[in-house]
Amino acid sequence: MKEMNFKTLEWKDGYLVILDQTKLPLQVEYLDCKNFEQVAKAIKDLNIRGAPAIGIAAGFGVVLGMQNRDYKNWEEYQNRLNQVISILESTRPTAVNLFWALDRMRKVVENNKDKNFEELNQLLLKEAISIHQEDKLMCERIGEHGASLLKDGDTVLTHCNAGALATGGIGTALGIIYTAQAQGKKIKVFADETRPVLQGARLTVWELKQEGVDVTLICDNTAAVLMKKKKIDCVIVGADRIASNGDVANKIGTYNLAVLAKAHDLPFYVAAPSSSFDPSISDGEKIKIEERSEDEVTCGFGKRMTPLGVKVYSPAFDVTPAELITAYITEEGIKEGVRFKV
Amino acid sequence: MKEMNFKTLEWKDGYLVILDQTKLPLQVEYLDCKNFEQVAKAIKDLNIRGAPAIGIAAGFGVVLGMQNRDYKNWEEYQNRLNQVISILESTRPTAVNLFWALDRMRKVVENNKDKNFEELNQLLLKEAISIHQEDKLMCERIGEHGASLLKDGDTVLTHCNAGALATGGIGTALGIIYTAQAQGKKIKVFADETRPVLQGARLTVWELKQEGVDVTLICDNTAAVLMKKKKIDCVIVGADRIASNGDVANKIGTYNLAVLAKAHDLPFYVAAPSSSFDPSISDGEKIKIEERSEDEVTCGFGKRMTPLGVKVYSPAFDVTPAELITAYITEEGIKEGVRFKV
Repeated sequence: MKEMNFKTLEWKDGYLVILDQTKLPLQVEYLDCKNFEQVAKAIKDLNIRGAPAIGIAAGFGVVLGMQNRDYKNWEEYQNRLNQVISILESTRPTAVNLFWALDRMRKVVENNKDKNFEELNQLLLKEAISIHQEDKLMCERIGEHGASLLKDGDTVLTHCNAGALATGGIGTALGIIYTAQAQGKKIKVFADETRPVLQGARLTVWELKQEGVDVTLICDNTAAVLMKKKKIDCVIVGADRIASNGDVANKIGTYNLAVLAKAHDLPFYVAAPSSSFDPSISDGEKIKIEERSEDEVTCGFGKRMTPLGVKVYSPAFDVTPAELITAYITEEGIKEGVRFKV
Repeated sequence: MKEMNFKTLEWKDGYLVILDQTKLPLQVEYLDCKNFEQVAKAIKDLNIRGAPAIGIAAGFGVVLGMQNRDYKNWEEYQNRLNQVISILESTRPTAVNLFWALDRMRKVVENNKDKNFEELNQLLLKEAISIHQEDKLMCERIGEHGASLLKDGDTVLTHCNAGALATGGIGTALGIIYTAQAQGKKIKVFADETRPVLQGARLTVWELKQEGVDVTLICDNTAAVLMKKKKIDCVIVGADRIASNGDVANKIGTYNLAVLAKAHDLPFYVAAPSSSFDPSISDGEKIKIEERSEDEVTCGFGKRMTPLGVKVYSPAFDVTPAELITAYITEEGIKEGVRFKV
């Protein structure tokens, strides 16, 4: 299994160590999360982000919330579990992996009511480690399936960060690029800077450079003209949640790229673990979209750039309808989308 | 004629006063340009920008370059004129108005070789003032023609700044909004922030607020989802140069919006004086596109946001093909584009 030159998150000596993504790319600093409140804050404040990574961190958050406490009885244990999960659930609303991981943790307790609290906590830790390990494996599989879609010399456009920094492994969209590169294919990448929080400029560029990938940074509004000039062979993005009809919620700007890809007849691929598919949601319009603080737009670069009191509309995600998607790349294989052509 | 609450540029007491747009919106400061080198630098450094405003400033730049000097003979006068024009021409390559205005200044001298140097300089000043006055009038006419396309309650999406700050009058795209508002129509505006230099966030939002227009700021990548949600009735942008086949060079991101507008069946209007039409250029691909410094992308606003040494692709403009344009709004009227429907 490919090891990255950095660790996005790691369980170490009984606590969770998180690479602080708000400090990247200029400082490489780690946050030690020794209680679940710190994990919840790290998710909310984007110290860790990316749908799969949030799920993994939340799993370890439950472990931290439950361990090293005296429980008088089962009710006390159960109340604490509900409290911890409820606070972790409230951190970010859009990524389904968070809820999926917390559900897995809850089920461990439900299915092992005969165990004592110490044993239960051991099982919770085992489950959190499994979620992390499975994610690593899923990234590998996604990378292998996706790499089969890339030819030597291809140029990929990506948005936001669906990389190792967003997962427990090599990433989803970027994992495909790392895998293709490891297979000896020369792949070039254009990375959208991804306003307002600049995950592309800060994170995708940083991690692609760590791994020696040829990357060029562009402003989000420059993708269209690159497509027109035939400088792009395909678009690969991640997903925060996929509805059962195939609609994809992902970072704001993803829908824009999908419209452009269709207009320029370019494949538009969504790379995500199957845990990003949410069978409980029929279509994308029902996915709850987080709106973030207007400060991210008005003073995102350390300096206020617009008059005081201006109205701002800043949804963190948008929904790309299934009909704009060429294929979904999951750990299970390539799932054809509406735009798929052989 | 509508007077704005601020002056973008003004000829005053024998020199040119420019509202310093690099300081907006947080500081309202004026630059006194007392020689032509200062005007050239102000254009190059974006203290003044916008195709029509650049043309006007260049006209006054010629005046400043020629006045208050002793000329021994005709050759010396002519050499100086060539030098001044050539330096002003070299400031920015894309906007045609710059070359158009400098041509007008040159012709004044060519057509009046019988005059003495003092008289010639007076004629140059008269011509520069005419260019400015004509631009004001053109903006009024564009505003009137364009306002006929807007209904009470419409919401307009605009990109970059094609406003009073880009012209000698009320602006082109934004002049239409001011005129419609003065006619009693309620018009809402979404303003793209317009990376990398944020002319939308800094300038368009500022001037719309000065004039009491209801404006909401968005990141460039958010326009698509607003169109999908039917929150936009039309797109109006300016133009830096229009080729004879109708292709439009304008701020990077314009082509993106034109593709989106077509995909969502929304009108896409280009508002520009007829001086932006360049009959010498057959199609948009032949328009020279300025590439600007990568610093504008990597550390535009007081803080570096991406790793050192990253490659950046940052064209300042893009070309929108004629087939994506609904209509051109000039001082002469509404010129139907390929997408025009009655």
